[in-house]
Amino acid sequence: MPSEGSLRLGILGTGLIGASIGLRARALGYHVVAVDRSPVNLRLALERGAVDEAVDALDGRELDLLVLATPLDVTLALVRRFAADPPRARLILDVASVKAPVVEAAAGLAGFVGTHPIAGGENSGPADARADLFSGAYWAYDPAAFAPARAEAVAFIERLGARPVPIEPGLHDRTVALTSHLPQLLATVLAAQVGERLGRPPTAELCGSGLASMTRLGASSWEVWGSIFSENAAPIAQEIRSIAAILSKLAADLEEGRADRLAPAFATS
Amino acid sequence: MPSEGSLRLGILGTGLIGASIGLRARALGYHVVAVDRSPVNLRLALERGAVDEAVDALDGRELDLLVLATPLDVTLALVRRFAADPPRARLILDVASVKAPVVEAAAGLAGFVGTHPIAGGENSGPADARADLFSGAYWAYDPAAFAPARAEAVAFIERLGARPVPIEPGLHDRTVALTSHLPQLLATVLAAQVGERLGRPPTAELCGSGLASMTRLGASSWEVWGSIFSENAAPIAQEIRSIAAILSKLAADLEEGRADRLAPAFATS
Repeated sequence: MPSEGSLRLGILGTGLIGASIGLRARALGYHVVAVDRSPVNLRLALERGAVDEAVDALDGRELDLLVLATPLDVTLALVRRFAADPPRARLILDVASVKAPVVEAAAGLAGFVGTHPIAGGENSGPADARADLFSGAYWAYDPAAFAPARAEAVAFIERLGARPVPIEPGLHDRTVALTSHLPQLLATVLAAQVGERLGRPPTAELCGSGLASMTRLGASSWEVWGSIFSENAAPIAQEIRSIAAILSKLAADLEEGRADRLAPAFATS
Repeated sequence: MPSEGSLRLGILGTGLIGASIGLRARALGYHVVAVDRSPVNLRLALERGAVDEAVDALDGRELDLLVLATPLDVTLALVRRFAADPPRARLILDVASVKAPVVEAAAGLAGFVGTHPIAGGENSGPADARADLFSGAYWAYDPAAFAPARAEAVAFIERLGARPVPIEPGLHDRTVALTSHLPQLLATVLAAQVGERLGRPPTAELCGSGLASMTRLGASSWEVWGSIFSENAAPIAQEIRSIAAILSKLAADLEEGRADRLAPAFATS
């Protein structure tokens, strides 16, 4: 049971982001109750101290704040359900990496604010959760959300140590298509190429720290990324087309003996 | 002056690799004499203890071992000059990232072994040099080099703490086109795209650790990379064409609403 006067925070999804929010919020005195469809994640989040109560469902319990920290497709399904049957929470936040479809789905849901912390990593489970994951990190939020909820969301983001960034959901989605979704795909494709073609010595031994850096994200899970690609398909496809066109031009330059034409890309980077 | 009995090592080029070799070799008791066309690098290498003597030219001094640790184009010019007018060194190694043209240019040079340490980083100067840069790292060498020189080169690579990997120069070059040169270009192109398009808030704030990892190599210098792209142009162009084709296919999948087709790339990575 929460102690007298402590704020009640519900978290749906105790992966890296959900569990890190739990760790930090508990340190701030929140009473954290969490749900996860993965009993393994939920138990680990509890063991790591990210959660006060691990439950099967929130069952209409009254909350000050509810955070949806699930994969994007689950978040969309939850938001649609909540729009018809709102949970008993004054403020509801999500943390998904694509914002326009979530904000659109939440149109009828009072107290909802779409947000996206620019933090995380290639490991999506609670094992890597840290109370300081958000310290100094930017955290995007929808500036068009209902004003009182928005103000409370900004205050919560700041209490977690992060820096709130108001950004229109469509601009957010087009931007992360370039800064996050394209890099993820490049890492995945590169890792897959190297994995398929270089299984054994001596070629497997010609993989240095540069390649490691460029394929680290290749370890990310489809469970997290699949719905991001579906929901943000058009901007991502456009970024892929741009980079593929630039690469084809570079290949043609090399084939024509004009490696010198690659120099400007180095100058601007 | 070298102390009685210490081995004399000459290093041409005191960047990250040359200075790291110097640091480690001095710790092993070598007397290290170095040349660099950059007085700044040479002084820094001396100050950092990577070099016993910083000189303007080797001027025919007798050496046990000469290491060429210059950018590829300089290495090629040196090897061509040495093939006509050999230096007074029992063993000559280079460390350039492309091997076939170097080994070909060195055809007439007795005592030459083409090698390539799989170590380094995006900073090419001596400031980041470390005596343990090669500890446990793979270090490729030409297995067709003249046997006595090759045996001595392998012994030197092992003394530096690295693991020698015999690999035919053409196979080496085709492999690093995928494992090193393509990743470098992807990082450069991505960094240039982000740099051009995201100058200011709020979009500049949507750049997380994944992007940082994917653009770290973007800081690499054209001085180092320019001649790598020229000399290994055909294999690199082929790798670029492959990855651009895969990316175009992914873009088409997304445009057709078939994000699910991206799943296998995640499964294999």
